Amino acid sequence: DPEKYSFIIHGLVERPLAFTMEDLKRLPSVSMIRFLECLGNTGPRRHVSEGKNSPPVTVQYTHGIMSCNEWGGVPLSVLLKEVGVKKEASWVVAEGADGSKYTYCIPLTKAMDDCMVAYLQNGEPLRQEQGFPARLFVPGFGANHSVKWLRRLMITDEPYMTWDQSVHHAAARVDLGNKSRWFNFVWPPKSVITRPSAGLKLNAPGYYEITGLAWSGWGKVRKVDVSVDGGKSWKEAKLQDPILPMAHTRFNFDWTWNGEETVIMSRCTDDQGEVQPTLAELNRNWGRTEKDRLEPISNTHYWNAIQPWKIAKDGSITDVLFA
Amino acid sequence: DPEKYSFIIHGLVERPLAFTMEDLKRLPSVSMIRFLECLGNTGPRRHVSEGKNSPPVTVQYTHGIMSCNEWGGVPLSVLLKEVGVKKEASWVVAEGADGSKYTYCIPLTKAMDDCMVAYLQNGEPLRQEQGFPARLFVPGFGANHSVKWLRRLMITDEPYMTWDQSVHHAAARVDLGNKSRWFNFVWPPKSVITRPSAGLKLNAPGYYEITGLAWSGWGKVRKVDVSVDGGKSWKEAKLQDPILPMAHTRFNFDWTWNGEETVIMSRCTDDQGEVQPTLAELNRNWGRTEKDRLEPISNTHYWNAIQPWKIAKDGSITDVLFA
Repeated sequence: DPEKYSFIIHGLVERPLAFTMEDLKRLPSVSMIRFLECLGNTGPRRHVSEGKNSPPVTVQYTHGIMSCNEWGGVPLSVLLKEVGVKKEASWVVAEGADGSKYTYCIPLTKAMDDCMVAYLQNGEPLRQEQGFPARLFVPGFGANHSVKWLRRLMITDEPYMTWDQSVHHAAARVDLGNKSRWFNFVWPPKSVITRPSAGLKLNAPGYYEITGLAWSGWGKVRKVDVSVDGGKSWKEAKLQDPILPMAHTRFNFDWTWNGEETVIMSRCTDDQGEVQPTLAELNRNWGRTEKDRLEPISNTHYWNAIQPWKIAKDGSITDVLFA
Repeated sequence: DPEKYSFIIHGLVERPLAFTMEDLKRLPSVSMIRFLECLGNTGPRRHVSEGKNSPPVTVQYTHGIMSCNEWGGVPLSVLLKEVGVKKEASWVVAEGADGSKYTYCIPLTKAMDDCMVAYLQNGEPLRQEQGFPARLFVPGFGANHSVKWLRRLMITDEPYMTWDQSVHHAAARVDLGNKSRWFNFVWPPKSVITRPSAGLKLNAPGYYEITGLAWSGWGKVRKVDVSVDGGKSWKEAKLQDPILPMAHTRFNFDWTWNGEETVIMSRCTDDQGEVQPTLAELNRNWGRTEKDRLEPISNTHYWNAIQPWKIAKDGSITDVLFA
């Protein structure tokens, strides 16, 4: 019941306060178009069909656990100024009102920068499954930070080792002796060709437009390169307006298919100069060995490897990331 | 049935051609976030309650026949190059496949500039009522130009006096001896405060954020001024990113209500310097007399008058454009 809803900000603050929906709607608001991507999106386990009679793996399955929406709500900085954050504070612990008391924490610097308590999605009240009536929204970070059904924000002077952040959303690293890097925040640059992609079929040789999405949690997309020869050569794609920070950006690439088997793929570079890695580079970044690499069920997050799609002579298209 | 769908381009062209959905999807595509507004939106008849027991007039009723979406499809210029437009051509007549053979025409210069044959709305196939499988999309013009269920485009060397354009969508002008200006294309700059607006109620004096939308068919919104004293004084509002051409742009304005009766309103200026007119100025522009002005049922289009909302001492809010 949104009439009864409130969430509290407490901890290292001058004036702990509860905010109702009416309070939130009276405060200054902001809206932003930003992507939201699950930590596990495109991880190895999503490149495997679920069984003999399952439909083939498509881009909707490998890359589908993400979205790009207009989020509206109150800047978290406005709320934190209302309660008066104490000098020694440095972290914000967010707790949801769901059964599991889902809890995640973020640095105070990010909270003061561009986070919001969101109550609108694409101009409408949040849907129930999106955290109605209000959720935290943390742009550019893994979606798990954007705690739904927000119940409280606790201001602390150290990070909390929350159960969700540690058990579900940390990945053991071989290069750290199987310890985890506990906190992972920003989604690195990423892109995917959505058309043509696995499960679709080209009817005949000739002109095709390659199109897809690119994004980066660090900021805007600077450029997207496309290869139509399995990565031997790359050419720059056209970007479509609007190019917004931390938002899906559409790219297009003119291509004439000669009817031969080939592999197509895209590579995003963001405005910090960060480049989307190949599978081999990503494995090195994450300290994964060749053996891990071939175990598609391992727990992996922030997976931003370049996605290759193989086009067979008959025009059928398949996912070949682990081929 | 989208499999059987096709539309033709004929008339003053080198090669008349039919395009199927498969053809369209293979051609280069573009997407753009643009408003679409019915010619009759906010006209006088929409400021009158429909009867004694009708719900009160709200901003959804006065300003609701419009939207802002991401439209995706093939640039019309690409299709026109395929068919080879002849030198003497200067107009494009578009016909829909609905029962009425809805027909509207636009200048060829606009068709070559930024129009598209759209088959996607917000990334999904068009809905049936939006013209599935394909419609014309004419950015910045009155929505009536964006013909749904597109069946044919005829290229001509003169404008067509189509029934829809003349009978339904032309307004007699007193200053032209009750003749009409036949063709009206571009939506002039416009804005509206959506919160607080008619039908809502302020609970108590104190801080409120005034927020609303601004747009112009001529391009980007340059600034929005807000008055909280019935138009005596104006202050500039904050604009929210992204500010896109021919798209709804959100504005925000901090306000402390002192509890006295007042009138609030907003005024848009676009990047060409065009300014949203008052009701009196708009009437002068359209050659309307004082008598017309008070006849809210008269046929009026492209209505972009500044919208005042009156706030009573008890916090209730009403539409006072014709008060």
